[in-house]
Amino acid sequence: MNILEIIEKKRDKKELTKEEIEFFIKKYTKGEVTDYQAAALIMAIYLNGMTNKETTNLAISMANSGEILNLSKELGKIIVDKHSSGGVGDKVSLILLPLVSSVGVTVAKMSGRGLGFTGGTVDKLESIPGYRTNLNMDEFIKNVKEIGISMISQTENLAPADKKIYALRDSISCVESIPLIASSIMSKKIASGADKIVLDVTVGNGAFMKDIESARKLAKEMIGIGNLANRKTVCVLTNMDEPLGINIGNTLEVIEAVEFLKGKMQEDLKEVVLELGSYMMYLAGLGDDIDKNKEILLENIKNKKAYNKFLELVEKQGGDISYIETLEKFEKAKYVEDIKIEKEGYISKIDAKEMGKIACFLGAGRTKKEDKIDNSVGISLFKKVGDKVKKEEIIATIYANDKEKLNKAKNKILENIKISKEKQEKLKSILEVIK
Amino acid sequence: MNILEIIEKKRDKKELTKEEIEFFIKKYTKGEVTDYQAAALIMAIYLNGMTNKETTNLAISMANSGEILNLSKELGKIIVDKHSSGGVGDKVSLILLPLVSSVGVTVAKMSGRGLGFTGGTVDKLESIPGYRTNLNMDEFIKNVKEIGISMISQTENLAPADKKIYALRDSISCVESIPLIASSIMSKKIASGADKIVLDVTVGNGAFMKDIESARKLAKEMIGIGNLANRKTVCVLTNMDEPLGINIGNTLEVIEAVEFLKGKMQEDLKEVVLELGSYMMYLAGLGDDIDKNKEILLENIKNKKAYNKFLELVEKQGGDISYIETLEKFEKAKYVEDIKIEKEGYISKIDAKEMGKIACFLGAGRTKKEDKIDNSVGISLFKKVGDKVKKEEIIATIYANDKEKLNKAKNKILENIKISKEKQEKLKSILEVIK
Repeated sequence: MNILEIIEKKRDKKELTKEEIEFFIKKYTKGEVTDYQAAALIMAIYLNGMTNKETTNLAISMANSGEILNLSKELGKIIVDKHSSGGVGDKVSLILLPLVSSVGVTVAKMSGRGLGFTGGTVDKLESIPGYRTNLNMDEFIKNVKEIGISMISQTENLAPADKKIYALRDSISCVESIPLIASSIMSKKIASGADKIVLDVTVGNGAFMKDIESARKLAKEMIGIGNLANRKTVCVLTNMDEPLGINIGNTLEVIEAVEFLKGKMQEDLKEVVLELGSYMMYLAGLGDDIDKNKEILLENIKNKKAYNKFLELVEKQGGDISYIETLEKFEKAKYVEDIKIEKEGYISKIDAKEMGKIACFLGAGRTKKEDKIDNSVGISLFKKVGDKVKKEEIIATIYANDKEKLNKAKNKILENIKISKEKQEKLKSILEVIK
Repeated sequence: MNILEIIEKKRDKKELTKEEIEFFIKKYTKGEVTDYQAAALIMAIYLNGMTNKETTNLAISMANSGEILNLSKELGKIIVDKHSSGGVGDKVSLILLPLVSSVGVTVAKMSGRGLGFTGGTVDKLESIPGYRTNLNMDEFIKNVKEIGISMISQTENLAPADKKIYALRDSISCVESIPLIASSIMSKKIASGADKIVLDVTVGNGAFMKDIESARKLAKEMIGIGNLANRKTVCVLTNMDEPLGINIGNTLEVIEAVEFLKGKMQEDLKEVVLELGSYMMYLAGLGDDIDKNKEILLENIKNKKAYNKFLELVEKQGGDISYIETLEKFEKAKYVEDIKIEKEGYISKIDAKEMGKIACFLGAGRTKKEDKIDNSVGISLFKKVGDKVKKEEIIATIYANDKEKLNKAKNKILENIKISKEKQEKLKSILEVIK
């Protein structure tokens, strides 16, 4: 077996065997297959696709390229993991995980950092002063045992082949490929010790999957991998045509998450959190009735159990909970400016991708791996598609540390919110659930 | 403009502009585009193809990546170049160029080394003791002025982008692509100062182009590039289903070439040499009547003018002509063994590709750029498809320096010569001429 034959096979649209995929992943992880050979193979996969069998083998090989955790054995509990294929304003994990933990789901969560648009869950958690995301495995397990939840960053040795391939894809225009996205997500879930998985598959212009058909395809691919790897997987397809919730930017999103947990719930965010949470409960064996699960979750918002679980989590990870208790303590951006709408009507479009780019331009995201995120900057968007707006009504607030960037962002935001004279339908938050 | 957008465009089957192709070639030559980015783009070109316009722009950009020679200005003559897309037993240049020189075509030829199968023209010339292929430009021009012919190796700075891309293609299974082959060949021809070009496009299992349709496509692509670059180009499609002539291996091929020039002409080789030679005369303005040109060429074999021109060339380049005059002086391989045929009948197939691989296995070719070729080894094949053979008749001779390799080669040769009870047609040597 050699890499030239493997490239040739995929180039000629033939199916790669398990052994060939393992050969590639092993040799590439060790550096015995070069980056340019991997790049040629990845482009051939991008253009010629992969069968379900190939995608599953790729996911499993990438998981096997590093350490495979067995958390349920360590903890004696079923571990239900949650993952999102990414979006703008997506602070779901910050809310959802303390919430499900408060109803008894064991949460042992490793998250990634964001690349592009906005920060990832780890970046958001780190915007809480003192919060340590780099616990070692013993501390991580200990915390989960003691309070039922821990949220940390992925260990270095988790699916290293996936890390290498992900970085390569990013530099050869091969990101948006269903087999490559599916195997990348699932390799990390398999390696990080999940028994069951709830996937938030985002759909729309701010997501990788632009339309519902591609999202369904991705979902089915991941469910197939989950089945073959003995990890029951449920996919919830959610809307990402407009940003989720109100705030975009690390600190702003932490604030929105805390307010949510205290009961101030933005409708779209609420629907997504409850849907994902109910399925996490279902997979954890805590109830088969999805609607009833939602009621239980809502009750734990009302009685502050979810909020208290979040405080407990932050404290346990070394975070300063006075920031959570007094949100005003968070450092503010230098310039805060409201944006007023210029004409009245109904909002017909808020471009999620562009809003993500604007937040990133203000400093809330990375364009290179090495970039430092500015936690205090971002955007608040107070309206949703379908909302009626009056002339001169405040539609958004910008948080910036650079006057010039603020002015550019202001124009960009207005350009990317469309107003129509006709009444507009609200967007559905939950598009479909695939089991 | 950036390389990610260029890769994305080709990935999505869009046509690249002249500026985008130039950007890629310039940046890749300088090392500002990485090998893995180039590999992804090359694979996308392999799979999605290129338009004629793109292929021409690629050829011209690669030619412009180094020095562009203007030999006709230096020499005051029309320079007609010749190139073959490669084959097994292809010693055509060794014969053809002294021959056309002897009738008055100016020959200023730069050749490459072979990679895979057998050596290139430069390797074959270097098997003549003393022959210098690395003349500098002044010596090269001076020799052409004095005796009308010089044959050297390509200068380092000739289409460096092509060298880089060719090596990359070889290590990512992207060799057999018509736009990439066409632009590679034509970039070198344009850069090396040819005014007019005769291309020997080989067709069959020992060539890049396996069938006549692909060969026609390649020919038309190259003629199109030639036209746009103001280099009139004629393509002769020749058969490469069986090896050309008798011998495979550097010294063996030099010996066959010398014998040809002395009048001992193998039929298939003769047809190819005369066809290409006649078109070279035609392009050089020495006669429009192709059949008459062939007669003139044959006359110069008979009267030894072509042979004497070869002696003159070898001497001028520092070679020891006593080897040419007394072919027995060439160093022999340690083991020389005849192969007898086991059953009688008609030869129905001699697998050119396999014969090339066997010769390479004996040491007559390279598998890596750094490999040293063993000049003395190789194979002689005395029969052609259609020939009648008797039981126990000698069909081939192996020249080897390793007993074990000799035995393996012997079996392999017999496996790859098919004998049929029914009478078989001879293969046509010249398949088509495209102008």
